[in-house]
Amino acid sequence: MIFSEKPAVTAGAFTTSLFPSAPVIYDERKLKATSMVRTVVVNTGNANACTGERGLCDTKRTAELAAEALSISVEEVLVASTGRIGIPLPMDLIEKGVGLAAAALSPDGGADASEAIMTTDTRPKRRESTISIAGREIRFGGMVKGAGMIAPKMTVPHATMLAFITTDAAVDPAFLASCLNKSVSDSFNKITVDGDMSTNDTVLVMANGEAGNPILSADSPESAKFADALTRISHELAMDIVLDAEGATKFVVVKVSGAATDADAALCAEAIANSMLCKTAWFGGDPNWGRVLAAAGYSGAEFAAENVSLFYDDKLVVKGGADAGTPETELEKTLSKDFFTVSIDLGAGKRATEMWTSDISYEYVKINADYHT
Amino acid sequence: MIFSEKPAVTAGAFTTSLFPSAPVIYDERKLKATSMVRTVVVNTGNANACTGERGLCDTKRTAELAAEALSISVEEVLVASTGRIGIPLPMDLIEKGVGLAAAALSPDGGADASEAIMTTDTRPKRRESTISIAGREIRFGGMVKGAGMIAPKMTVPHATMLAFITTDAAVDPAFLASCLNKSVSDSFNKITVDGDMSTNDTVLVMANGEAGNPILSADSPESAKFADALTRISHELAMDIVLDAEGATKFVVVKVSGAATDADAALCAEAIANSMLCKTAWFGGDPNWGRVLAAAGYSGAEFAAENVSLFYDDKLVVKGGADAGTPETELEKTLSKDFFTVSIDLGAGKRATEMWTSDISYEYVKINADYHT
Repeated sequence: MIFSEKPAVTAGAFTTSLFPSAPVIYDERKLKATSMVRTVVVNTGNANACTGERGLCDTKRTAELAAEALSISVEEVLVASTGRIGIPLPMDLIEKGVGLAAAALSPDGGADASEAIMTTDTRPKRRESTISIAGREIRFGGMVKGAGMIAPKMTVPHATMLAFITTDAAVDPAFLASCLNKSVSDSFNKITVDGDMSTNDTVLVMANGEAGNPILSADSPESAKFADALTRISHELAMDIVLDAEGATKFVVVKVSGAATDADAALCAEAIANSMLCKTAWFGGDPNWGRVLAAAGYSGAEFAAENVSLFYDDKLVVKGGADAGTPETELEKTLSKDFFTVSIDLGAGKRATEMWTSDISYEYVKINADYHT
Repeated sequence: MIFSEKPAVTAGAFTTSLFPSAPVIYDERKLKATSMVRTVVVNTGNANACTGERGLCDTKRTAELAAEALSISVEEVLVASTGRIGIPLPMDLIEKGVGLAAAALSPDGGADASEAIMTTDTRPKRRESTISIAGREIRFGGMVKGAGMIAPKMTVPHATMLAFITTDAAVDPAFLASCLNKSVSDSFNKITVDGDMSTNDTVLVMANGEAGNPILSADSPESAKFADALTRISHELAMDIVLDAEGATKFVVVKVSGAATDADAALCAEAIANSMLCKTAWFGGDPNWGRVLAAAGYSGAEFAAENVSLFYDDKLVVKGGADAGTPETELEKTLSKDFFTVSIDLGAGKRATEMWTSDISYEYVKINADYHT
């Protein structure tokens, strides 16, 4: 449970799935009505997705329980769930849990909260930062959970897991929403683990104004500073997800440059970052660049094969669409690292993007074949 | 090496990758000029893709070697390659191999040929059939190779592996080409193993007229009979690929009905058939239907969640977008089978499609992490 003493201006980004979970539906409706929020209740183990009318009632009831426990209005409560799809929420446990969580609220509870929201995550993921605006110290705190069912839909800003960012900045609601959209596009929408988008993806940012700065809006002198800080912490949290990706042994940055359009850059990056054959080759430390080019070739991006270059870190692998002649032992050195960059230049224009992804290991298959049982 | 005594009317379907292999480029050009072909030379172990000008020269040289060995015109030769991308063809081996293959040509060589084209396939895949047209017996023979890097691109008819179909029917070239497009759409384009489209996908059908039937064209009385037979053998060969999919333990038919458009049906089927989370759940025999709905939800198909039904074989799993209440032990019985059907009704219209796919196992990861070494 996240709680703000003062009502916080809150913005959200949510999954674009046609099976949004009950809490996603609930939170979206709520934030359309008012952006002022004081608490977010989060449960794991049960996604409350594909649970029909009953699911919506259960989410509403969860919000009511939290409002009662905290003596606030139900209008000031958001709900987030993650876990198994299709099973009704065990409301007896939720009722008990909401009471326990409310009783355990503490300014030092961040570490506990970030552990409590884990599912297949191997470690809690928290980030914090501080900036100064108009002479006031502005603090940011963020936590995130997610290790699988992670995929971007880069055309529409949305989230791909649960992330909660709090700040004590005073911010205008419209400006906060636009900052969040931008930061999600540049962070959570650029990661993929398995290409599977979730029904529950949610990013919430709450700004309660405790810092006492003049209210930030799009035309404030230091608005960019705030937006950048939000993007930076989002970026860090998104990287944390990929670093903890289910069964992953490598962190791979896929960079696309020389694309004719932004859409082409995104298509190409997504195809490479989601390719099972690239991801298994990376797991095997295999410099098999043909798989990278094959993925670019079917991505839907437009380019001419003979203009394509490929790099592994700073090593030239492909030039003019064919082998650049770098000794394979050199490439193997790069591919054996835990962290490397695959950069493709399509030679078709000036647009660029990047994505962050992981390899696919035996362990990924094991985790996901066994998740249910 | 496939050889026809008489020049055969030949049609081809090829990968839509922007990195088509040298033989794909060569064959497409050749078939635009003339459809008469007598031989197809196939090599494995080397894809001759992403090999630039040198690759094109090597393919041309391969065709010339075959023409010399068989004393036919180089215009009557097609070439197909499959294997590692980005390495120049070892022309000394090709030269030797073409001579050996030509010397070994035999009417009974089908079994040897279907073994020779294997790469990660665990078994050769051949099919044959006979129909009667205008009182003449028409024979079909087909062989296929492919077990990974298999994915459809259903909007454009094309192939996803190497398949060679021969028939002794007499057929008009334009009619043969249209029959092939239709049969590929309904067979090879409906399978997926890993979502990775290849640079070398090729389906060729050769019809040499030895059966002596009146030449079949679109308005022949029995044209549909021929088209159906071609689709049927293509269907069988496509199923053979999925049954031999890399590391696969299950064969899964994904059926989509109630879609608003054909494109929606295809998007939904592809999303489910390629979902890593569905495929690992199938490997684990886990009836986790939430993953199926989640994939439908991000597929891009349009529908309302509350109108969706799901079946595993004939067992109702989801009704009105939520759990239908069938006991999980019942569903586990279906999911533990080697062969089952996942049918989703989107409740949004009347369009339908199906795809054939496999699960993803440890073995898939092993095969593809180790392929290079």
